[in-house]
Formats: sequence, structure tokens, C-alpha cells
Amino acid sequence: MEETGVEMQSSNDNNNLFLGIDGGGSKCKAIVMSAENKILGTGISGPGNPLHGFEQATHSIVTSAKLALSDANLPESALGNIVAGVGLAGVNLPVLFEKMNNWQHPFKTMHLATDLLIACLGAHQGADGAVIISGTGSCGFSYVDGEEFIVGAHGFPHGDKGSGAWFGLQAAKQVLLSLDGLVTNSLLNDKLLSLLEVNTGVELVETIAGKPAAFYARMANLVFDAAEQGDKVALGIIQEGASYIDNVAKQLSKRCPPRLSLIGGLTPRLIPWLSQDVQNSLSTPLNSPEVGAVFYAKQQIAKGNV
Amino acid sequence: MEETGVEMQSSNDNNNLFLGIDGGGSKCKAIVMSAENKILGTGISGPGNPLHGFEQATHSIVTSAKLALSDANLPESALGNIVAGVGLAGVNLPVLFEKMNNWQHPFKTMHLATDLLIACLGAHQGADGAVIISGTGSCGFSYVDGEEFIVGAHGFPHGDKGSGAWFGLQAAKQVLLSLDGLVTNSLLNDKLLSLLEVNTGVELVETIAGKPAAFYARMANLVFDAAEQGDKVALGIIQEGASYIDNVAKQLSKRCPPRLSLIGGLTPRLIPWLSQDVQNSLSTPLNSPEVGAVFYAKQQIAKGNV
Repeated sequence: MEETGVEMQSSNDNNNLFLGIDGGGSKCKAIVMSAENKILGTGISGPGNPLHGFEQATHSIVTSAKLALSDANLPESALGNIVAGVGLAGVNLPVLFEKMNNWQHPFKTMHLATDLLIACLGAHQGADGAVIISGTGSCGFSYVDGEEFIVGAHGFPHGDKGSGAWFGLQAAKQVLLSLDGLVTNSLLNDKLLSLLEVNTGVELVETIAGKPAAFYARMANLVFDAAEQGDKVALGIIQEGASYIDNVAKQLSKRCPPRLSLIGGLTPRLIPWLSQDVQNSLSTPLNSPEVGAVFYAKQQIAKGNV
Repeated sequence: MEETGVEMQSSNDNNNLFLGIDGGGSKCKAIVMSAENKILGTGISGPGNPLHGFEQATHSIVTSAKLALSDANLPESALGNIVAGVGLAGVNLPVLFEKMNNWQHPFKTMHLATDLLIACLGAHQGADGAVIISGTGSCGFSYVDGEEFIVGAHGFPHGDKGSGAWFGLQAAKQVLLSLDGLVTNSLLNDKLLSLLEVNTGVELVETIAGKPAAFYARMANLVFDAAEQGDKVALGIIQEGASYIDNVAKQLSKRCPPRLSLIGGLTPRLIPWLSQDVQNSLSTPLNSPEVGAVFYAKQQIAKGNV
């Protein structure tokens, strides 16, 4: 993006080039930054969550990193000179953390953290705070006085209430029940069938069978659309999901975080449905999770964890 | 099982040897029968549901068939002389029916039907009737005057309410929420953690992440155990599932089936929780689904569909 990037490349022995990675269930985002936190380039690739496969996750991380380097007018060879902060969904599970941390990565050094920690560091400019994430998945996370606290982050379909995938799954369930005559029809029927370009229950089942969370998350917006049009079934779903997010906020507030932010793709749709108390307690996130990943790498270096 | 089996092998030109297959999400059952409906041998193998893979389904079908032949003291070579009625979960979806029907099977002829139709034919000795199935999955099905009618059969996790997998998933969800302090603890916590031999929420998530319906179905019994001990959370789950099965029964009764049976692994646990009306309307299933698959093959031959 800027000519300074080329200059930096020659002095990379001094940790002058940083890569931030935010690897989630739907996509992997990369950012290249200078030691002075100047953004040099960005890149986006496919899913970076190792829960759905080590090969795909590492491929997505490297692809997004190369795209960010290219965006910064830096050569691919700069990968070997870059300090990477890598935040990934799924590595809250010890077995996945171990696997990813043992990866023979192409970077100078890699500092691995959960997607939750880097999101929190990003939202609060590297300082203490808490975040509620609602995108493909959902969870709450606080980082206060060096202590991490997690609510949720359980995955789909057994957890992730109030997430895009959860809203989409509720919609699909309601439409299937109504096609069987077991609950009343709602605006969800037309919206869902039309989004998925199917006409019957059998076609709907064929389309959704075995699909991952990211697929269901595509259906979340139509639940909010229907609720905003006054549809009672959609309203019931939204209220259940929003009430869960409210409860997550209450759990996090017990940890006394200086700031709380709601982040993730569902944020603009979700906020109006939260309790007034929770809405009032929300602060705007200051930086993205991938910038938070760079903050994380820098904090680790400052602590001597090279 | 009986010496008559060996005799039959020599006169197999006349469709004297029949194979019945019931391929579900957890296992595939086979039965070898004579033209006179005498049971000659049985076999059981792994999952036979093509939703989870064509290779595994066809492998399970052939394996269970060979086991049944061996049980009948018949050689494997008899496969090529046997008329097979094959009922499979998943083939209500046209794409899977097509795929399985094009299989280069090793039998003399194969008559493919849904697991629902063969279960219904089995339960009512080949006559009209209806069944509600609650095993790994759930659904309702009626076969009256040549017309099939299906309620549910949508699959996991978007459908199959009131099934073993559904009860297990509800238990896992409640335990995860309670470990986060978002709902009160219940008897489900100890029972679930002990069944899965885990101690923490993180271990629980690691154990259940990405697991199929059959895995969740293993947890269904503990929900009934907890409900029978008066646990309120378990009672809520059971009541929601049982009420769904009640509604399926009501939908089926509109088709005026001469008989209605509840079948599948969850039957003994579920019956006491159904409404008195529905309990009173239930008839004992007369034969197994795999015997129903043989009935189906014979009916197809009688209709000239060889």
C-alpha cells in the first residue's frame, strides 16, 4: 500500500515487519503492519479454523499472508522475515492448539493465540476489556489483569447460540416443521426457500443436509428481516438469541472489564434487540482482530517470548 | 439357521431366496428368508445410510448380507441368486435414491425403498398402516391405499426432533450452558460428563465437536434417566420431544391408517411420556423393518417389477 513497506524489508532483523492473522470459520484475514503500527497491506482467503481441517487452515493462513504482502508491494520471500501473530478459532481446544503450534510455518516467528484474545486486544487497542462475538459462531470473552475468561465458544450445532449459524438453523427448523404442518407458516418460509432457491421440503433437506456452520450463517439475515416485518416466529427466534447474548454480557460484566464491545458480522442486526442496559454498556471496537493479532505478537516479544 | 436353507439354493431360479436389508444411520441389518417367509439367517454390520457416504453404505449392505448368508449356512456365492429388498435411510432424497439405485449390486435383483416404507410394511405384515420411528433419527410415515405420506425425516441437526440424536443434543446443549453459568445445573451434568468420560467443558467440546447423529443418540438414555429421577431440565427436554411425537401421531391419524406403531430404539423410553390418546392408539409392530424389506421385494415382483 505504501512505499515505506519496501524500505522496511531490508531491516527486518529488528522485527520491523509484522503479520496479523484472524482465522475464522468462514474466512481468514491477514494484515501486514510496520513496527509503528502502520498498515501496509491486507489479504483475505478461505476458512482458517483448524476445527475443519489442518490443511485448509494452514493453506488459508499462508494464502491470506501472501495476498497482504502483495498488497503491501512486498515479495513473497518476505514471509520468512515476518513476525506473525496468529489468532485462530478452535485453538481454545488444547489438541488443536498443539497441532497448530507445531506447524512448520513459513514465518520468522509465530505467536499463536485464540481468535477471542486477538479480537479482544484489537477491540481495546491492546488494553484490558471484553468482547462478545457474534458472526458465524458466538461467544463471550474477557481479558482482565492477564486473566482470560470464556463464555460459550462451543461450536455448532451443540453451542454458539445467538450466532449467525444458530439463527440460520432455527429458521431452517421452523420452515421444515411448518412444511410438515406441525407449526404455522411464517414469513421465514418464502424468504428461506427463495434464498436457497428450492421449492419443497425435500429439496430443502437435500440442500442443507450435512452443511457446516458457515452455510447456516448465510440464512441469519432473513430471520432479522422477517422479525423487523413483525413475523411472530422470527421474533421468537430473535428474542431467544438476543436474550442469550444479554446473559453472556451479564456473565462478562462480573469480571469488571474496562470496556465491552460487540463484534462479528451479526453486530449491526443484533444490537437493536439487546436489552437497553447491554446496549448502553457497549463501546465501539477500536481495531480489527487481525490488528489485535499484531498487538499480541508485539506483547509476546515485549515479554521476551520470541 | 435351518437346513432347509441349503436345499433352497439349488432352486433359486424361481425367486426362492430373499434378502431383506434395513440400512440406518447406526447399523445395517440383513435377513435371509425363504419364499414361504421362513427366516433362514440374520446379520448386522455398520451404518447403511448413504447420506454419510455411498462407499460405507454399500459396504455395510454387502457385509450384513454375507453375515446373514453365513448364518443361514449358505455360501457367499448365493448373493448372485438372491432377490434383495433394500430399505435405506436417506433415499427419500431423489439424488441419493438415484445413486443407490444405480449401484452395481451383487444380487440377482434389487428392489430399493425408503427405510420408512419397509419399516411400515414390516410393522403391519405388509398391509396398510403408519409408523412413527424414533431411533437415531425420527419421523412419521403412513402407507394407505398405495399413498405414502411423510412427516419429518429431515435429518440431523436441523430436524429429527424427538429422536435419540435430538435428545442427546439437547442434553449436551444444556450441560454446556450450565458449565458457563447461564442455566442452572441439573442431573444431566454428572450423567453426561461421566458417560463421555470428560471432566470439563473444554474436554466436552473436544469430544462432541463434529460428531454425527449416532454419537449424540448414545446420550439419549441419560435424559430419560434424569427425567425419571425428577430432574426439571431433563423433564423439559422430554416433554418437548414427546409433544413433538404426539403431534406427528396426530398428523398421521388424518390419513386414517388401520394401524399405528411406534418403532426404533427409543420406543420403550418414549411411550410412557406420550399423551394417553396416542399411547392408546399404538399397536405392536408385527415384524422388523428388514422383514418388511422382503415383503416389499415380493410385492414388487407380484406387480411385475422384476
